[in-house]
This record gives sequence, C-alpha cells and structure tokens, in this order.
Amino acid sequence: MDDDRSHALTPSARPPATSQLLDRIEDGDARALSRAITAIENRAPECEALLRALYPKSGRAAVVGITGSPGSGKSTLVDRLAAAYAASQRRVGVVAVDPSSPYSGGAILGDRIRMSDLEENPDVFVRSMATRGRLGGLAGATADVVTVLDAAGRDPVIVETVGVGQDEVDVVRLADVSVVVLVPGMGDDVQAMKAGILEIGDVFVINKCDRPGVDALERALRAMFALDESVRTPDAPIVRTIATDGRGIDELRDAIDRRGGARDAPPERARRRRAARARLTAVLEERLARLAHDHLLDDGEFEAAVDAVERRERDPYSVVDEVLGRFRFGRAE
Amino acid sequence: MDDDRSHALTPSARPPATSQLLDRIEDGDARALSRAITAIENRAPECEALLRALYPKSGRAAVVGITGSPGSGKSTLVDRLAAAYAASQRRVGVVAVDPSSPYSGGAILGDRIRMSDLEENPDVFVRSMATRGRLGGLAGATADVVTVLDAAGRDPVIVETVGVGQDEVDVVRLADVSVVVLVPGMGDDVQAMKAGILEIGDVFVINKCDRPGVDALERALRAMFALDESVRTPDAPIVRTIATDGRGIDELRDAIDRRGGARDAPPERARRRRAARARLTAVLEERLARLAHDHLLDDGEFEAAVDAVERRERDPYSVVDEVLGRFRFGRAE
Repeated sequence: MDDDRSHALTPSARPPATSQLLDRIEDGDARALSRAITAIENRAPECEALLRALYPKSGRAAVVGITGSPGSGKSTLVDRLAAAYAASQRRVGVVAVDPSSPYSGGAILGDRIRMSDLEENPDVFVRSMATRGRLGGLAGATADVVTVLDAAGRDPVIVETVGVGQDEVDVVRLADVSVVVLVPGMGDDVQAMKAGILEIGDVFVINKCDRPGVDALERALRAMFALDESVRTPDAPIVRTIATDGRGIDELRDAIDRRGGARDAPPERARRRRAARARLTAVLEERLARLAHDHLLDDGEFEAAVDAVERRERDPYSVVDEVLGRFRFGRAE
Repeated sequence: MDDDRSHALTPSARPPATSQLLDRIEDGDARALSRAITAIENRAPECEALLRALYPKSGRAAVVGITGSPGSGKSTLVDRLAAAYAASQRRVGVVAVDPSSPYSGGAILGDRIRMSDLEENPDVFVRSMATRGRLGGLAGATADVVTVLDAAGRDPVIVETVGVGQDEVDVVRLADVSVVVLVPGMGDDVQAMKAGILEIGDVFVINKCDRPGVDALERALRAMFALDESVRTPDAPIVRTIATDGRGIDELRDAIDRRGGARDAPPERARRRRAARARLTAVLEERLARLAHDHLLDDGEFEAAVDAVERRERDPYSVVDEVLGRFRFGRAE
C-alpha cells in the first residue's frame, strides 16, 4: 500500500467550539442561533464542534412536522400555531424547509413575500432552510438545525415542509408528531400526498373547513385509516381549522400536545431509536461522500473519464469499478 | 492491517448480462423494457450488467423533462404530447416520477386513477418510478431508466416530475430540454416552483390558457427572464395550451424540437458534460453508501452506538469519527 495515498477517514482540522457562541445559544440568544444555523447550512469548519457540544443538550423538545401541498394554507397555520404556543409561555422554534413557504424568502415574479407577524414575537424563532446543494441531503441539515433549536430550549420545534418529494418525507420522519394539512375539494392535493405522507400522519388538519366537501374528506380519511394497514396512527385525530381567522388552532395545539405527551410509550421509543439510527447513517454517508469528493474526484484522470462517459465511449459503472478497485478499505490496525 | 476486514470496493458477484433480454430491449420489445426497468428499481443483480451493455447505445434520444405543480394539468399535457410525437412516427418513452401522476398508480382515498389512452398506443411506452427507498436517490434511478429507453430507440424520452423537492430538481437537470408547466392565476404554483425550476426552464407552457390571468403570467415570466441572471434560457419560448382539448400541443412539440435540435451547440455540450459528471458522481456515491451499509453498519457495536445516540449519551458525529477512524482508505498497490 502506498501510504501517501492512504487517508484516515476522520477530518483532520477541527477548530475548538466557540464556547462564547455556545453559551449564547444555550441562553436562547436569537442572533447566536442564526449564526449557528448559518454555519450548519454552509458546513462551516466550526459546525461539527457546535453540534457535538449541543447534541447532548438536545432531545427535550417535541419535534412537530407539518406538511401539506402548496395552497393548503399550511404556512398561515404554522404562523398561528406558533403564536398559540408562544401565548402559552412556550418558546417556539420554526424551521421552514418548504420552497413555497413565505419564510423561505426570495420574492419572484414580482410577488411580495408576506411578512409574518411572528418576526415581531421574541418567543418565536423562525428560520428557513435552503433546499439545494447540500451534500448529505436536506434531511440531515434539517436534523442538525432541529438539534440546535432543541438544545437552545425551544419547545416545540416545528418543521414545516411540503409533502411531495422524498427529501420532504425524510424530513417529516424526523418528527415526534407529524401533522398533515389537507383542504376540502382538492383531489390534486390528496394525490400529491401519496408519497408516504398520509401513512405517517399522527394528526390531520382539514384547513379552510368552511369550504364544501369537508365531511366527505373526513369520511375518506377515516376510511383510509380503517383500510390501509400501513397507516401509523389509525386513531389519528382530525382537526378542522380556518387558519386565516384562527379557528381550531387551540384544538390543534392540544391534539399535538396529547400525541407528544405519549413520547415515552414503547412505540415512540422505537421511533426515536429509528431516528437515531437514521441520523448516524446520514452522518456516515455524508462523510463518505465528502471523502469521495476529496480523494477520488479531484483528479485529471477523473476528468478524462467524464469525457469518455459523455461521449459514450465508457459507461459510468465500469469507470467507478475501476476507480474504487484501486483502493482498499479496511481497519487501520 | 487485518486482511479479513479489508475489502476491495468493487462488487464481487456480477452475473453475465442476459443477452437475450438485451436483444429484446434493442428490438424495442415493451415487455423486455418493463423487465429491465423493474430490475433497475429493485437493484437486482443483473441490473449493472444490463446498464453497462446499454449505456454505449444510449445518447441518441432527446431527453425532455416536464415539471409543474399538482393541478397544473401536466399529466394530461404529457399524454397529449406523447401522442403527438407518436403521430409523427416517433417511438416515445415516458417516465413518470411524480407521485401525483396518474401513471404512478395506487388509488387512494377511493379516487380512481385515470387510465391513460396511451396504454393502447404501441408507440408510447409509459413507466412510473417509485419515489421511495432507493439508495443513491431518485435521480440516479431515473437516469438509469432513461438510459434503457434511450438505448431501446425511444426518442424523445419524456421525464415527468413535480417540481418541488430537491430530488425533482435533480431529475429535471438530467434533461436536454426542460419544460415548465404553469397555470394562470395560481400564485401558489409559482411559489412552489422556486426551488430552481424556473431558472432551468427552456420552454414554458401556460396550460389552461382559457383562464383569466394568462397575459399577466406571460408578462411576469418575461420580466423574470429579463431580470434574473440565473435564468438559463432568457429567450425561452412561452407556449399557450389547453391540454384537455389538445390546443397548442403541436406548437409545444415544435418548440421542444427546436430546442432539442440545438444540442450540439457549445452550451449544450457543456451541459451534457455536467450531466456525465453528475452521473459518475452519483454512481460513486451510491457504491460508497452501499459499502457503508455492508461493512460498517451490520455490527453489534453499531447498535450499541445507536442506543447511546438515542439516549443522548453520545453524539452521532463523534461516533462516526470513531467508526471511520478505525479504517484506512488508500490505493491497493
């Protein structure tokens, strides 16, 4: 083995955690929270040290995932729900990973992004997540941000996502309580929820419940709970809301809290164990992917292989076999 | 180094490609296509051998990505477009990776899935992709399916996806021509498209163009093309359609073909090179992830670590450091 080409898989440079930043995060300082989350999004050098220090202090918050199609009124609902928690002396964290969320910023097509009332509320910390370009996936980054908010004493931590793609399903799986927002009369909406979201809902919301079709939607949900064996919470409460005028929001908060209060029951323990396993696996995969980028891909030979693949002279499978075949992976001692 | 724990990174068992299946695929046999795609979805042992053999025969088809929110009428549009290509003596492949697509099957809530007319058309091959549980991501699996259809002589290959999550954006990036479907009067729709989709559209469709707001939407798009420097195709055509009655479909086909015809221009070459690089990287990452699962995670020690992480006694970052720190990664000779 050529030792010059042999690398331990652990990162070499690991700056000491900024203990001052950590202290401020634990005090719940919003600017310190923002800074830590930016470090996570950018994979800044200090981010792992921060997460190592904060992880043991996390695990107290109820993590509430809220998902629904664009147009379901989900963002307004999250707004109101966060305000309801704040009104009952809770300090709330909100992570918006939905590209259609007003929090996720960036007005396009001349649309003005609605400024949330929450920005004025010191008991609610709102942060959007970029949905692109993160090695290791959106779910991993979101899990890290939830850890920071949880360690900072935010409880609940609400994760808002649009329930369509695999990334979004993975994000919902992080949650202790999953809330699915539906709207009467939107067949498309229901179609869009097929990717595993309905099965994992613990609490269902029928928002805009002054619209026609609300009874039919509730009956359809109950029928699904009864028929589909993959449904996780067959007795899931169905709460009717009109987020725009606040109707049903307190009932929703109570339904979430009842579900969150069951967190030490055996099925919930099993779920948290699965979440811990997924977390470990995600960190491991991210590290391996980074390794591939650092040690295999920055190579003139790799560029030549890209050319050959583009011209169809070679196929990507045999190129990867060849590249990996040159390396050996085994215990150091 | 303990050789028993040292592994070459190439898969050991690689069954010979079923040459009969390959012959039938190249003849365009629809049942052989289905079988090959099922093998890819399941990561069956024969799948890499198939892809190795088919990859050199691919690269001829125009790959057309079509994206739009649920409710945009995208599936009907894809139906009509595929039929229009078939009517002009083209053999078309359609891959639906949209969980809200009627092709993706699985009726829920008592909804009947619309049966497409296309199922009767021998010149159109339609296949849906599952959106879950695939190591290496949906984009990688979709790229493999496109390779099979392309090698089987399907041209164009239409990839239908819902443009919301990162996975879906990655899928659209595979395409030679990206079509974005919008509907007048749906502000939500536009919000939902923010995750990079508008920037990469080459052809825009305003479907349901008999609705109010069509002129305003077209003006807004033109304004965005002029203002946003990240827009890839500032002169992108905007085609008005009513998919349900076929209006504008031939114009859309022509707009796609004009764009597809420019595939050998320098910017398109650069894009195909980026696609080849992404393909190689995806295969490499999938292989490394599989390695992690096979050689690092099936371990009683790992289970103990999961317990410690779940109880917050350890953090996932230091566990992964420890696990990887035991291994060495380097050239075999």
